[in-house]
Amino acid sequence: MSITYPGGFRASGVTAGLKASGKPDVALVANDGPLHSAAAVFTSNRVAAAPVHWSRQVVSDGRVDAVVLNSGGANACTGHEGFQNTHRTAEAVADLLAISATDVLVCSTGLIGEQLPMDRLLPGVEAAAGGLSTAGGASAAEAIRTTDTVSKEARYPASADSPSEGYSMGGMAKGAGMLAPGLATMLVVLTTDAVLRPEQLDTALRAATRVSFDRTDADGCMSTNDTVVLLASGASGVTPDEAHFTEALTGVCLDLAAQLIADAEGASHTIAITTVRAASEHDAETVGRAVARSNLFKTAIFGNDPNWGRVLSAVGTTDAVFEPEELNVSMNGIQICRNGGIGDSRDLVDLRGRDVTVEIDLQAGSAAATIWTNDLTHDYVHENSAYSS
Amino acid sequence: MSITYPGGFRASGVTAGLKASGKPDVALVANDGPLHSAAAVFTSNRVAAAPVHWSRQVVSDGRVDAVVLNSGGANACTGHEGFQNTHRTAEAVADLLAISATDVLVCSTGLIGEQLPMDRLLPGVEAAAGGLSTAGGASAAEAIRTTDTVSKEARYPASADSPSEGYSMGGMAKGAGMLAPGLATMLVVLTTDAVLRPEQLDTALRAATRVSFDRTDADGCMSTNDTVVLLASGASGVTPDEAHFTEALTGVCLDLAAQLIADAEGASHTIAITTVRAASEHDAETVGRAVARSNLFKTAIFGNDPNWGRVLSAVGTTDAVFEPEELNVSMNGIQICRNGGIGDSRDLVDLRGRDVTVEIDLQAGSAAATIWTNDLTHDYVHENSAYSS
Repeated sequence: MSITYPGGFRASGVTAGLKASGKPDVALVANDGPLHSAAAVFTSNRVAAAPVHWSRQVVSDGRVDAVVLNSGGANACTGHEGFQNTHRTAEAVADLLAISATDVLVCSTGLIGEQLPMDRLLPGVEAAAGGLSTAGGASAAEAIRTTDTVSKEARYPASADSPSEGYSMGGMAKGAGMLAPGLATMLVVLTTDAVLRPEQLDTALRAATRVSFDRTDADGCMSTNDTVVLLASGASGVTPDEAHFTEALTGVCLDLAAQLIADAEGASHTIAITTVRAASEHDAETVGRAVARSNLFKTAIFGNDPNWGRVLSAVGTTDAVFEPEELNVSMNGIQICRNGGIGDSRDLVDLRGRDVTVEIDLQAGSAAATIWTNDLTHDYVHENSAYSS
Repeated sequence: MSITYPGGFRASGVTAGLKASGKPDVALVANDGPLHSAAAVFTSNRVAAAPVHWSRQVVSDGRVDAVVLNSGGANACTGHEGFQNTHRTAEAVADLLAISATDVLVCSTGLIGEQLPMDRLLPGVEAAAGGLSTAGGASAAEAIRTTDTVSKEARYPASADSPSEGYSMGGMAKGAGMLAPGLATMLVVLTTDAVLRPEQLDTALRAATRVSFDRTDADGCMSTNDTVVLLASGASGVTPDEAHFTEALTGVCLDLAAQLIADAEGASHTIAITTVRAASEHDAETVGRAVARSNLFKTAIFGNDPNWGRVLSAVGTTDAVFEPEELNVSMNGIQICRNGGIGDSRDLVDLRGRDVTVEIDLQAGSAAATIWTNDLTHDYVHENSAYSS
């Protein structure tokens, strides 16, 4: 399922021994064509990992034949040796699949600042190539997990009964966060059997990630390795309407983004912060992100405390268009702040459920945007202090 | 001591009953002159509390005769009624001390979005006025505490034996954070018996806060109430050299800033992040602040983990001038990252002590700056989730 749901793709996931836990850690995805169109977006972190430098080059001509991914090591801040190791990994895949190394995208995730154990990785790549299968999507999704408690997959159409336009799409993701900035590392592989050129894929991918992964902000920390790649095999023979394709792709990305935030490190609440009546979409996004990055807001939600003062103090740090005495804030539907002051009783807000909605009304226009985040908990502190990641 | 150390000042701290704990919660500081020069800096949060709006007006003519401070309620996001309550508080002080209400600065700290209980606050103000004393500095410092575990005071000269220039200075502070942005609320009152005009005080205060409170970043959250006020009584009769005064004032501010960060909510490590060889002081500050705001970095330090990858990934999000392959990072003197890659062994770094130094070398110029922060701990999450503040 998932990335092998569309025609033209095989995948696999194996254990190479990169992780101390002995869990699967190398995944391979092959696009068997007939088309090999691709587009990708990467972290905007200036300290980018070796595989990001490599993969930017690979995708620049719009062709990708295979994607090899490893967990158990980010291969970031590893210098010349690190880049050579990425190159050797791509060469190994190319030899095994009889393709060109410059058509092999490489993704890595794990601890920054350690060299990958190539004596274990390369045999793992060989095993992954041998295990490629049109039913291998789930194994691949499993092998890219790091601190993820579950693997994440999505597809279009959502079920065999759902209406479609004759083509399909699949996706897998890992990481507890976002694209830019990105928590831990977010790696996403999207596949489709639609017939589309690289430029069309690129346009659709940027439109879809802008309103999905880009608006997911788990802990405000940007990764050195974030990669989202979209591969088209053309195996359906169907050339889709571009607007429809973008909409379907956005649906798959939102599905994966929701799975990422639901599994964010240590989270006990999933929070959707929607800013409405903003002067611009950019303002709405800025306001939502400022609140999503407030540790005081995030710890309050962990404590089931509808502390709207911490929302307003975060909104007040932005340059968005608004008047402080016109701000309204609702949590789970209760308007606890009205015109910048005290609204309905905090006691009416019940935050014991997993999902929390925060609506911020700027009374400054007609634009809106939602940022997805999560609370800051003891488990987050434990997970990120007890061992290196 | 502290704010009543310089001649010309009286202070007091009393229990008005604003806090459920029954601890002192109202402080008063009176400048008996002969001069009444003053300068102040306030939060840059656009959602500013009623007392901040009031006090900006009060100090605009350079004269302040008294400062009244309450803990147990921020009086922020409280609308017209909140502003009237600030006004009534200033009027009460003015009546009691036979001064003008427009020369009374008001500071509040505590929960946002609740009205102050004036039936308790006003009797408290009366008691504070009755208790004013030239030995009242410590009581005042005690009464402005919220989550502070200790009161914070500083003075110049540091001891009776220290060399001085014939004038003295005192200060008190509360809050576990910074000026802009500011954690919880930072309130600071500084006093001096030097003879200086308001414009001179303003210049010195801005120079001193820029390199002390402004570079203290406990949790990246900016308060609605931050206020730093400097009062000069002229009681020493000494007109100081302005450069010397600024240097002495900076020393007192750095002393108080260090006390604030050492008592930051839940902290188990005090971290000094020094960025060196930056192209500009602004770059050095930007880089240090990005690292100080990384929850992944802060939890790693809590876990005694010298995770330099989390430092580099934060540096990579900034627009400072640097090349990724030229970054050096040392922790507690061990250079664990060299030229953007692996340096000396992480195992050589001992982070078990309270104080941690991080040095980031950008190899891009000759400017430097230090940002002071602290780790992100279970106690921080507990303190900010278990009850409203």
